[in-house]
Amino acid sequence: VVWKDDFARVVLIDDADYPGFCRVILNAHQKEMTALSAAYRARLMEVVFAVECALRELLAPDKVNLASFGNVVPHLHWHVIPRFADDPHFPNSVWSARIRNSARTLPPEFAESLRKRLGDLLKG
Amino acid sequence: VVWKDDFARVVLIDDADYPGFCRVILNAHQKEMTALSAAYRARLMEVVFAVECALRELLAPDKVNLASFGNVVPHLHWHVIPRFADDPHFPNSVWSARIRNSARTLPPEFAESLRKRLGDLLKG
Repeated sequence: VVWKDDFARVVLIDDADYPGFCRVILNAHQKEMTALSAAYRARLMEVVFAVECALRELLAPDKVNLASFGNVVPHLHWHVIPRFADDPHFPNSVWSARIRNSARTLPPEFAESLRKRLGDLLKG
Repeated sequence: VVWKDDFARVVLIDDADYPGFCRVILNAHQKEMTALSAAYRARLMEVVFAVECALRELLAPDKVNLASFGNVVPHLHWHVIPRFADDPHFPNSVWSARIRNSARTLPPEFAESLRKRLGDLLKG
């Protein structure tokens, strides 16, 4: 967990193929974005975009991918995935068939830097 | 095109596997959500959530999937996909390997109903 409050939390996923892959998870049990009030919806997107912003600053990915499926677990969460042209699926989705291997690693102290940046972006 | 203004447009995709699949496309050439101003970002999500809302009302899907990748075309767009337990990939993503066939069709006058509902939801 690299950020949390009473409303949501941000988890840095340990994925060898996708270092920096984060998940934003709503604490409340809700299934669809449009089941939330407009204010909660906006707040959840604010957290998602703060993660995108921090990942762009810290990793300079070629693209950031955002997705909310919840087909398996009917509990709202967002995938925020830094993508690189040499990653295992680029330019396809990370859920597509693998087309190459890659061995990208995170910069030193990445989790701490991410924690600090999200704290700044989401304070108040 | 089932809805448009100066800022964005909503396209109903002709996809036999995913009837009701919509794409929300920003008119301006921008690559990342966090490259937009907060106001434009909020407006684009408002359109995305209006489509989700209309699709839930008109099709009652088991889940709605939202995704913004843009790895191939670096031009912001969102996929809004009504998912059903008997669709070709459920509960996996629509970009995963196909696990079954399905033959779902849209209700009569669907495009017209969607057009009308989006007009109501996004007016003003």
